[in-house]
Amino acid sequence: MNPASKSKFLGADGARRATAEQRLKELGIELPPPPTPFGAYVEAVQTGNLLFFSGMLPAVGHEPKFVGRLGKELDAKAGREAVRVAALNVLSATRQKLGSLDKVTRAVRLCVYLATEGDFFDQPKVADAASELFRDVFGEDKTSVRMVLGVASLPLGVPAVVEVTLEVEAHS
Amino acid sequence: MNPASKSKFLGADGARRATAEQRLKELGIELPPPPTPFGAYVEAVQTGNLLFFSGMLPAVGHEPKFVGRLGKELDAKAGREAVRVAALNVLSATRQKLGSLDKVTRAVRLCVYLATEGDFFDQPKVADAASELFRDVFGEDKTSVRMVLGVASLPLGVPAVVEVTLEVEAHS
Amino acid sequence: MNPASKSKFLGADGARRATAEQRLKELGIELPPPPTPFGAYVEAVQTGNLLFFSGMLPAVGHEPKFVGRLGKELDAKAGREAVRVAALNVLSATRQKLGSLDKVTRAVRLCVYLATEGDFFDQPKVADAASELFRDVFGEDKTSVRMVLGVASLPLGVPAVVEVTLEVEAHS
Repeated sequence: MNPASKSKFLGADGARRATAEQRLKELGIELPPPPTPFGAYVEAVQTGNLLFFSGMLPAVGHEPKFVGRLGKELDAKAGREAVRVAALNVLSATRQKLGSLDKVTRAVRLCVYLATEGDFFDQPKVADAASELFRDVFGEDKTSVRMVLGVASLPLGVPAVVEVTLEVEAHS
Repeated sequence: MNPASKSKFLGADGARRATAEQRLKELGIELPPPPTPFGAYVEAVQTGNLLFFSGMLPAVGHEPKFVGRLGKELDAKAGREAVRVAALNVLSATRQKLGSLDKVTRAVRLCVYLATEGDFFDQPKVADAASELFRDVFGEDKTSVRMVLGVASLPLGVPAVVEVTLEVEAHS
Repeated sequence: MNPASKSKFLGADGARRATAEQRLKELGIELPPPPTPFGAYVEAVQTGNLLFFSGMLPAVGHEPKFVGRLGKELDAKAGREAVRVAALNVLSATRQKLGSLDKVTRAVRLCVYLATEGDFFDQPKVADAASELFRDVFGEDKTSVRMVLGVASLPLGVPAVVEVTLEVEAHS
């Protein structure tokens, strides 16, 4: 390990050496309380090695932290913050479901849905707020595919919803 | 079994005891004829233990039963009815594909797409029409994750499309 | 084999006999260079027998080939061309990831997202441009399920994004 490297968890080759939980701590991220459903569904379902999540809102304790549309009431910066809050809910739901983020073997699919109005085409930059969080926590080599789209409206009027599928260790 | 329980298929602990086909019968639900594609695709594909479905429309015999947008021509109540018709098509396609709903081991992912206009944010209540149907048929402990979003338009002008992934017994 | 059949790769029963790579050649299709991400994500992730892709744009070399909304600046014909360009990017990303299209065992799920405005309900016809390409290349018996929806906006202002999941041979 190179003591001058940006992170003590990066080797000389820049590869990530720490576990997801260690990395989260190093990044100084405290996860919000686990999200709870807004309807007759559950937040996470595991089948085989895949862990599917419900679309996560930028909400804490059932309170939306952001309301509005990108390109109208909110700009890209607010959109990024909303996406990050939603993505943190994914991590919190993951830890609740698996006990530890370290049981995640890779991110598979990330969908970012943005409520947009008019000619707002900065979706990739806004969606990167989720991609970057997952990359920082799970590692560059565990990066997911991504789908991002601008939709007409989202539940409760939030500007962003994040939907994730992870690959995890099989049920023991 | 408690003879005073709401359902003869519920144990004293409220857990579901019946199979999906028995439950469907108890609920008095007759499934519509299996849906047929509106283009060059199939209605269901199984890979491993996962059964993926095409987005199901609130249509019977290729005739849309509802046309319009929520928040404009249609209200939440009509939206719920449309979602239920689409969800019944999922069940019909499941039985056609597997021979019996009893081969479903759990619901994994439910996506409800709603064509909305303006400030319609009642998506969770509308989407619950599908969640509740699947919960009643497959059981509370088989509940899926869920994604619901308001979109600009849906095929044929319908107000709702339901897309489902189920976990099923492996191909024998 | 019937020498009068439409394709030398079709048997007397109409079943497809050629591999995907042979079929592609027969159809005279040259794949574009593999697409590259517009953000912090990767184009393809394999987990088990499933190969997930990022939403593919109608872009070549990071340049959008189509910009606009269906029902406004673009019509269904342009929409079909855009969908085909995006679908060719899926094939190119597949070959890059697997080395050969012949390792695809079937198409599982196809999502076509169309940026629409107003009363544009011809989505199935437009989405068929992707379905038909995959059917021609992978074979009728490998056809996927499909989801198609009209959204408010897509990255970079493109009219269509194609998202695909394939079933492939397991990692050796």
